[in-house]
Amino acid sequence: MKMNNTFEISYLGHSCFLIRTINGKNLLVDPWLRTNKSAAIMPEEVHDIDMIAVTHGAWDHLGDAIEICKQNNAHLFCGAEVALHAIDKGIKEENITKMIYGTALTYQNIGIRAIVAHHISMVEYKEQILSGSALSYIFRMEDGTGIYFSGDTCIFSDLKLYSELYPVDIAIIGMDNLPGCPIEMSGEEAALVAKWMDVDVAIPMHYPPDSLEPKKFATTLEKTRVKPVILKPGQVFSYERKSYNGKVKE
Amino acid sequence: MKMNNTFEISYLGHSCFLIRTINGKNLLVDPWLRTNKSAAIMPEEVHDIDMIAVTHGAWDHLGDAIEICKQNNAHLFCGAEVALHAIDKGIKEENITKMIYGTALTYQNIGIRAIVAHHISMVEYKEQILSGSALSYIFRMEDGTGIYFSGDTCIFSDLKLYSELYPVDIAIIGMDNLPGCPIEMSGEEAALVAKWMDVDVAIPMHYPPDSLEPKKFATTLEKTRVKPVILKPGQVFSYERKSYNGKVKE
Amino acid sequence: MKMNNTFEISYLGHSCFLIRTINGKNLLVDPWLRTNKSAAIMPEEVHDIDMIAVTHGAWDHLGDAIEICKQNNAHLFCGAEVALHAIDKGIKEENITKMIYGTALTYQNIGIRAIVAHHISMVEYKEQILSGSALSYIFRMEDGTGIYFSGDTCIFSDLKLYSELYPVDIAIIGMDNLPGCPIEMSGEEAALVAKWMDVDVAIPMHYPPDSLEPKKFATTLEKTRVKPVILKPGQVFSYERKSYNGKVKE
Repeated sequence: MKMNNTFEISYLGHSCFLIRTINGKNLLVDPWLRTNKSAAIMPEEVHDIDMIAVTHGAWDHLGDAIEICKQNNAHLFCGAEVALHAIDKGIKEENITKMIYGTALTYQNIGIRAIVAHHISMVEYKEQILSGSALSYIFRMEDGTGIYFSGDTCIFSDLKLYSELYPVDIAIIGMDNLPGCPIEMSGEEAALVAKWMDVDVAIPMHYPPDSLEPKKFATTLEKTRVKPVILKPGQVFSYERKSYNGKVKE
Repeated sequence: MKMNNTFEISYLGHSCFLIRTINGKNLLVDPWLRTNKSAAIMPEEVHDIDMIAVTHGAWDHLGDAIEICKQNNAHLFCGAEVALHAIDKGIKEENITKMIYGTALTYQNIGIRAIVAHHISMVEYKEQILSGSALSYIFRMEDGTGIYFSGDTCIFSDLKLYSELYPVDIAIIGMDNLPGCPIEMSGEEAALVAKWMDVDVAIPMHYPPDSLEPKKFATTLEKTRVKPVILKPGQVFSYERKSYNGKVKE
Repeated sequence: MKMNNTFEISYLGHSCFLIRTINGKNLLVDPWLRTNKSAAIMPEEVHDIDMIAVTHGAWDHLGDAIEICKQNNAHLFCGAEVALHAIDKGIKEENITKMIYGTALTYQNIGIRAIVAHHISMVEYKEQILSGSALSYIFRMEDGTGIYFSGDTCIFSDLKLYSELYPVDIAIIGMDNLPGCPIEMSGEEAALVAKWMDVDVAIPMHYPPDSLEPKKFATTLEKTRVKPVILKPGQVFSYERKSYNGKVKE
């Protein structure tokens, strides 16, 4: 049962988060679940999803978005190339909003803004491979809380600018990579992003179970006002804006 | 009849501008006209175009460029993916210059420089969809006046750097979007870009008739040295560098 | 014969460099040789290549990489779209590492890091054209020396940030372009990048034989601590970190 003015961020594994808003809307991000051995739940166990945001076309981010979108009749926010892929896979065009850098809108009282990410996006589309633009997001909760979701971007300076223009309280930042894949952002770099953004809370994602990067991330944030919150798949972080405190439950 | 040392910027609707240079050359930018209900003229009414610059592959920017290019035997400046599309649609390769970030050249005494834009470009090419790189431009008139044309980029800090390296006097900046499409840049953000660039004149574009963004843009620029000039489709803004004044005529 | 603690950078023409590391590993970058009239050697004369780094899909950068990769059983570092092209042309997937902005790994004691570049990449892939992300690289030698290789990026401010995060001693920077192609970076801009990076040595590339840009580059670097080293195809620059000196031999 949700408390007043509190929203919940559930970590479902890798880069997948479920944000349950103050008004009880469910926003799912980068839902790679079925083939992720560390996933907290399976796609068919995800219910009542109102909206899904996908950062880019990659199997570990687009993941099970199409399936979950259909099952939940959820609205999909994604780049143009992912949108074409999704339509081709049976998602209705009216259930998709194409996002690109700068695009901002409000959907069911939640602000959804795509910002620049420096990464690549590739999807299958009919008989071809189609590349596009990887995105990051800033979500705006009903109480004004801003949540940055990095996707797979590397570090770049304008994250300072964007957090000034669009204030961020919680940053969910990728680091390391899947086993066998070279690192894309280090824990120290992710911590630098969190400091630039001057967030209350910074949550690491996108790392394998044995990664050292979340620890480096937390260590780098010591003696700053940013509180690192390292979640295990299945854990839920609840946040109330006024108190500037959050707590983790299993 | 053009005055000495004066050039004219005609707003043809949405993101389409016709720049008539001091020497009487005609540069057309992002010519979406035929299906734009607010367009000042139709493609077949456009005459004596020497060059067309297209920022990116999108129906509201590429627009009628191919048709106008053929009718006027104009030279086309565009990204590589738009170039492939244009060649496929019958434009001769020698009539196209492929542009990419940093590319700068002089054509008929007009400097044409592509700079970074953070947006997406997609075109049809033969049986496939081909993505590429959306561009912004800085045009250099015969008298040295620099005109920035944003295309659809979102805001980013290096617009400061680029306007330092390649001085800009007039900035034509997109804001809002077509009806039904989420906003890509706000009036306030566009004003911030104009201030960074320290331009004399800033002209909004890319907004629907009832948009509130141009007004916000103008309000944000009050008490700065930047003069906002809001044009209606069909209006012409004439600018003489020496006087640092411009005037609008119907 | 290599000296202790010295590595050698051989300029093979246009944007192709062969870096022979302290431990005798051979790293080849952007190997366009066969159809380059100014190339120092032909692809079949290149031997004992351990790794090839390609910045982007363009005939003057991807060049003869596939052929040389096969002949030398070399490992290929490149973007995802170039990787697909290479696999389609017969390179084994296990001999390729896909790189994207931020990706960093160590291979045979050499650090290979892809950083942001603002340019375009396009390759043929089966029956389609596939675009992707152009890269720049920072290579880390066994002794810690950092070598920046720009590829075809335009200038942008975060090169300062990246050289702070990943220190660079030698910058190899593109300027001008092939005959008949518009310039992408000027000598002055390349010099500004070198100054931002605060490198010991800056080496120009990507210019035609009669280009004025390398001279402008060198002139702009006068009275700075950055030493410009202009190499002719076939020349070798050797560098020993401790001495902070390098010398050129034919």
